[in-house]
Amino acid sequence: MKHVIRNSCALATLFPGLLTLASRAADPLPSWNDTAPKRAIIAFVETTTKTGSPNFVLLPERIATFDNDGCLWAEQPMYFQLAFAFDRVKTLAPQHPEWQTEEPFASLLKGDVKAVAATGEKGAMQIVAATHAGLTTEEFSKIVTDWITTAKHPKTGKLYTQMVYQPMLELLAYLRANGFKTFIVSGGGIEFMRPWTEKVYGIPPEQIVGSSLKLKFEMRAGKPVLVKLPAVDLIDDKEGKPVGIQLHIGRRPIAAFGNSDGDLQMLQWTTAGPGARFALLVHHDDAEREWAYDRESHIGQLNKAWDEAVARGWTVVSMKRDWNTIFPK
Amino acid sequence: MKHVIRNSCALATLFPGLLTLASRAADPLPSWNDTAPKRAIIAFVETTTKTGSPNFVLLPERIATFDNDGCLWAEQPMYFQLAFAFDRVKTLAPQHPEWQTEEPFASLLKGDVKAVAATGEKGAMQIVAATHAGLTTEEFSKIVTDWITTAKHPKTGKLYTQMVYQPMLELLAYLRANGFKTFIVSGGGIEFMRPWTEKVYGIPPEQIVGSSLKLKFEMRAGKPVLVKLPAVDLIDDKEGKPVGIQLHIGRRPIAAFGNSDGDLQMLQWTTAGPGARFALLVHHDDAEREWAYDRESHIGQLNKAWDEAVARGWTVVSMKRDWNTIFPK
Repeated sequence: MKHVIRNSCALATLFPGLLTLASRAADPLPSWNDTAPKRAIIAFVETTTKTGSPNFVLLPERIATFDNDGCLWAEQPMYFQLAFAFDRVKTLAPQHPEWQTEEPFASLLKGDVKAVAATGEKGAMQIVAATHAGLTTEEFSKIVTDWITTAKHPKTGKLYTQMVYQPMLELLAYLRANGFKTFIVSGGGIEFMRPWTEKVYGIPPEQIVGSSLKLKFEMRAGKPVLVKLPAVDLIDDKEGKPVGIQLHIGRRPIAAFGNSDGDLQMLQWTTAGPGARFALLVHHDDAEREWAYDRESHIGQLNKAWDEAVARGWTVVSMKRDWNTIFPK
Repeated sequence: MKHVIRNSCALATLFPGLLTLASRAADPLPSWNDTAPKRAIIAFVETTTKTGSPNFVLLPERIATFDNDGCLWAEQPMYFQLAFAFDRVKTLAPQHPEWQTEEPFASLLKGDVKAVAATGEKGAMQIVAATHAGLTTEEFSKIVTDWITTAKHPKTGKLYTQMVYQPMLELLAYLRANGFKTFIVSGGGIEFMRPWTEKVYGIPPEQIVGSSLKLKFEMRAGKPVLVKLPAVDLIDDKEGKPVGIQLHIGRRPIAAFGNSDGDLQMLQWTTAGPGARFALLVHHDDAEREWAYDRESHIGQLNKAWDEAVARGWTVVSMKRDWNTIFPK
């Protein structure tokens, strides 16, 4: 031990910042305050990954699923995919005079965001279907990439991909460093996420589960294409989340992370399996650094899932109390 | 070099079998004869994985998709999943008197396999839906596991999982050793494959793409379950294969392996991307060691895809000429 300490001291003389760096590197979750949620996460990872632990989980079974909107990135004042779809509607409106009177398009074009938001997930899907249908998967991917690398959030002026949560990026990395395979399971569109999730979250396209439109294989000028049809294939929300998990992963997660009632069934499904399980909800209670909303919100409503979390002892994160950083700097 | 050789000689004295073993280990595909298909596979892997190669492919893009029936394991005298379903029909028949007169059940119960086979993929799906519906995913998984570990093939008397192709097991391992992620993309049922593919092929449930029934999330006695409905979600065959690939993988494979017309669109989709691409068809031409069938077969018909393979220079494997071993010993 003395030998090691002497070496460290010698190194510290040469590189004064090194010890600070090393001690920070030892904390895998520096943006998390030392409160109950961080302790619960670390305890869960240790008990499921340490050889000899009674809760040890084999590598292939270490599946963790994350909601996206409101869990990995922000979702106010509207789902970011809806902002994307709004921009598409405005771009395409000259070719669709009927949208001036048809809802939810009419409200959208008048700038009445609240009226559009009130149509909920269903109205959102109508807009998505109307603006995405007829495109090939490659065309759509390019449109998303162009938008996500240029569009700015109306309040913060940041790129949307800069409005991801730093504590969750650390959590994703920490789980992966411990052999977990991380998946997104989102009500958002699977093809809307895939063009950028690998770069932003380190999650590849094949680990994205989301809502989808039906696809059709066609030959166009001798070249095969996949065309997005104006028909919903899966709404990966609420009861749809365990369905999406089974379809895409085929194995029950041992840990699941969400923030709203849309995640309740995913958390129920995850915690119903045997052995150690982990369920976490992010509570948006920081109006100063982010937004504050829960039981009455149109977007990201957290009501039933909150009650169940309290009753069942799931981890609830207060963004205000438990996170010292919200967005990456 | 001398030093290394001397060490090898010393080791060989101690462990006489070691050098033979080492030289065999140097050939990643020992069950493949040294003919054109093996050379084409190795050339493709080398050109896509060697740093500095003009065709170098980054690790996350190394996606390879494999058909299952007739490509990774045998499919005669009927798809093995159909044999499973037949056994289920026989087990459940006492509870379904109407099956005595309804097709394809009536033919099945009379033992008229040809009449059932003539109903094709559609008849197969009817049987699958009728025998699987109402079960939870966990119940179904248990039934499959019980069957696959006990049922024997009518001709060979082997377990069905012993009728996988040794050369393809080697190919899967070789690709994975070179950083490829291997997926199954099969017309067979996704939930029929998942209980055993990890053990048999080294392919985990989340890398299985297949035909599926719709699922429904329900609470049963306070416990969440996923129930299989008697409604098709996706037929992952022909035009459905690129659709299944996009839905589950979200990235175009750079290599695809099949054996029948059901794989044609997967091979078209795979080879239509930029850069080096690889497409291979297994031709069943070995009546002595396996089966011989192609253009006229009800099961695993190879007709259009064969013509296209010849026209486009895809690799066609003759089981008779190119494989020195068929099944694992």
